[in-house]
Amino acid sequence: MSELLDNREMKKEKLKEMLKKLHSGEDEEKVKEEFKNVLRSISPLEIPLIEQELVAEGVSAREIARMCDIHVEIFRESVSGAEKEIAKFPPGHPLRTLYEENVEIIKDAEILNLYASSLLKLKGNALQSTLKTLEGIVRGLKVIGYTHYNREEMIDFPYLERRGLNAVPAVLWRKHDEIRAEMNKLLNLIHSENYEEISNVGQDLASRLIDMVFRENNILYPTLQVLLSEGEFKAIRMQDDEIGYYKIKPGNEWKSEAKPIMPYEVRDEITAEQLLSLPQHLIEEMKKNMGDIKLHPDLRELRREGDIELENGYLLPDEISAILAIMPVDVTFIDSEDRVRFFSGGERIFTRTNTVLGRPVQLCHPPKSVHIVNKILQAFKKGERDKADFWIDMQGRKILIQYLAVRKNGKYLGALEFTQDIMDIKKIEGEKRLLDWK
Amino acid sequence: MSELLDNREMKKEKLKEMLKKLHSGEDEEKVKEEFKNVLRSISPLEIPLIEQELVAEGVSAREIARMCDIHVEIFRESVSGAEKEIAKFPPGHPLRTLYEENVEIIKDAEILNLYASSLLKLKGNALQSTLKTLEGIVRGLKVIGYTHYNREEMIDFPYLERRGLNAVPAVLWRKHDEIRAEMNKLLNLIHSENYEEISNVGQDLASRLIDMVFRENNILYPTLQVLLSEGEFKAIRMQDDEIGYYKIKPGNEWKSEAKPIMPYEVRDEITAEQLLSLPQHLIEEMKKNMGDIKLHPDLRELRREGDIELENGYLLPDEISAILAIMPVDVTFIDSEDRVRFFSGGERIFTRTNTVLGRPVQLCHPPKSVHIVNKILQAFKKGERDKADFWIDMQGRKILIQYLAVRKNGKYLGALEFTQDIMDIKKIEGEKRLLDWK
Repeated sequence: MSELLDNREMKKEKLKEMLKKLHSGEDEEKVKEEFKNVLRSISPLEIPLIEQELVAEGVSAREIARMCDIHVEIFRESVSGAEKEIAKFPPGHPLRTLYEENVEIIKDAEILNLYASSLLKLKGNALQSTLKTLEGIVRGLKVIGYTHYNREEMIDFPYLERRGLNAVPAVLWRKHDEIRAEMNKLLNLIHSENYEEISNVGQDLASRLIDMVFRENNILYPTLQVLLSEGEFKAIRMQDDEIGYYKIKPGNEWKSEAKPIMPYEVRDEITAEQLLSLPQHLIEEMKKNMGDIKLHPDLRELRREGDIELENGYLLPDEISAILAIMPVDVTFIDSEDRVRFFSGGERIFTRTNTVLGRPVQLCHPPKSVHIVNKILQAFKKGERDKADFWIDMQGRKILIQYLAVRKNGKYLGALEFTQDIMDIKKIEGEKRLLDWK
Repeated sequence: MSELLDNREMKKEKLKEMLKKLHSGEDEEKVKEEFKNVLRSISPLEIPLIEQELVAEGVSAREIARMCDIHVEIFRESVSGAEKEIAKFPPGHPLRTLYEENVEIIKDAEILNLYASSLLKLKGNALQSTLKTLEGIVRGLKVIGYTHYNREEMIDFPYLERRGLNAVPAVLWRKHDEIRAEMNKLLNLIHSENYEEISNVGQDLASRLIDMVFRENNILYPTLQVLLSEGEFKAIRMQDDEIGYYKIKPGNEWKSEAKPIMPYEVRDEITAEQLLSLPQHLIEEMKKNMGDIKLHPDLRELRREGDIELENGYLLPDEISAILAIMPVDVTFIDSEDRVRFFSGGERIFTRTNTVLGRPVQLCHPPKSVHIVNKILQAFKKGERDKADFWIDMQGRKILIQYLAVRKNGKYLGALEFTQDIMDIKKIEGEKRLLDWK
């Protein structure tokens, strides 16, 4: 026992020495190699124990994180094999982006695991500061849900669904949500004094994050690689930026002349050749979830006869009118020459009749306030303002009236009057979530 | 003086007797004729004085109103001449509707005048109950602003404006607004103890209402009659119901086979013949307001190349996209087969990418809550529900998410997700009116 302690004490001293060297300005690469050798000589199971003792002895979070980086480098080299995959795609290719994010996720999951597992050994200030660090780490990890997972769910999965591969996306999404829920659970726990629970949930979360990396690297990404055409990856690349990334910025080296193909344009069924190239893990997953593998590709055409092509979709004129009528707000649009062009139907706060179509807005307003209307429109046209908000009390209701400059690529198209009764909205408190619906 | 008093006492006694007779069930027409003769024998200036004394002596408001009715009949017969005009148009013709409402307005203005002028002579309970009656009268009169005046401003005026007759509508609208403002002023005053002011404002309001009837009956309506074609009156008739009426319900006797003509379809300039037929009052009003009479008809075409015809207007696809993008809410539409068809662009709370277009909504949701989504859609499709509201806290904001069934003539077209950040709305207090804008 004392031998073991001595031995660990020795290793700790060695690690502290390494940390000092990193700060001393010695050749960083050389120190890092030396550091890795020390770390390699310690059993992976022992590392968290030593790390948590270092934390207890006052080694700063930043230094521990530094050590973690090096630790993760070892992990990466030996375990993930992701580097090899990454190298297959030029920077900017959506698959490279996904693999690169997963390297970051593994690193951060490791850090989470380190802090979570060290927690129970700490007391007093060290405990409090570690909890604070842990909270910061989890908040940072939540971004994975908004970016990496969200891109997969919203951009990548539809391409598989069109080919009838619904089960695998559904399983991954469910697991994403479990991870998201566990992040929230951990954040809610963190100010409790239930340190054992915090430690357990933290470690469980870390292992789920790493498990997800494994599933993605070994199932999802190889499947996308086998099935998707260059045009599909091009379309994915064009959409990816809208959602954003976890800790990386995709490069621009990958160029493609292919025509972007949206999921709703996909007519491909999976070929026998593709089926044979799919990762074995996927086939197993499919068998587990579906009994046998029957694919029902989705060949539905998006565009219908009479559809109007809009920036983000296709609607029939009747649908546009009905949507604008059902919205719990009233809108009226005047064009760039101040003429009334459109107002929404349905139940309105301020009644409008079609007789005002084409009418200059100045003639639709009480003469007393026309000069203000003109001032606002002037400010919109000059680009000095984008909106003007008003609110009034009317027959016991509170009415919010917003004038909004409507522009396309900076060009002024007109102004929108956007009016709503906010009386009930003002009273909303607490939460009512989808799962509460009855 | 005492003779005058006696004389008035006598008249009062006579009036009281008449009121009793009205209640006694004697032949009403006969009593009314007798009543009219008594009233005619009293100077119009003296009537309010006597009426207010009757109020002070405890004659009930209902009886006074009854007397007022008869009083107004006299007024109508001798002064307004409206009956003659009314008879020119079959029930349901928009001009008849307007004239009929003006008969009601005169009657109610008379009642207002009676109560307002009697106020200063009253004390205690009689005063308080008269103030309460007055408040009810003014609240009733406010409906004129939402109906009779509003129809003129929104439906009738555009037909004159297209012909270049802008000044007269503007003058009338300004006066409508003065009346509306005076109604609000009176309502605000009514719980003060400034009885003199209440009385003065009430009487002034009554005389403005009557003056407006005069202007409309003698200027606006004859002008509409001279200039507008049958198709234009047909279109007016079709819109009038949307705004509603003051105390009357238009009949259905007037039938027209003409094609309805909206203001934006009017290409007519005023002919020499029409000009000569316009009411003299109008010509004077125009000269006063414009120096000389130069008309600039508005011949602008409403519909442009590429315009999509919607229920209430015409928009270009780019305008539709830009309007939906600038709205301070996010919308996503799924069709009747649950497929995503459209989402609004711009800054969004929940990011969407075009890859979800055509995707079944069930695949766009966390698997955990899909069963609720399906329940809601089921209730929409069966017509059992029209909406489902949720609200959640997200990164310090409060997000309201509303699902709305979109229908056209009862047929289910799809569902709209309508999402907004209500954090700032919840904080809105007081009023910020157009005239406060800087």
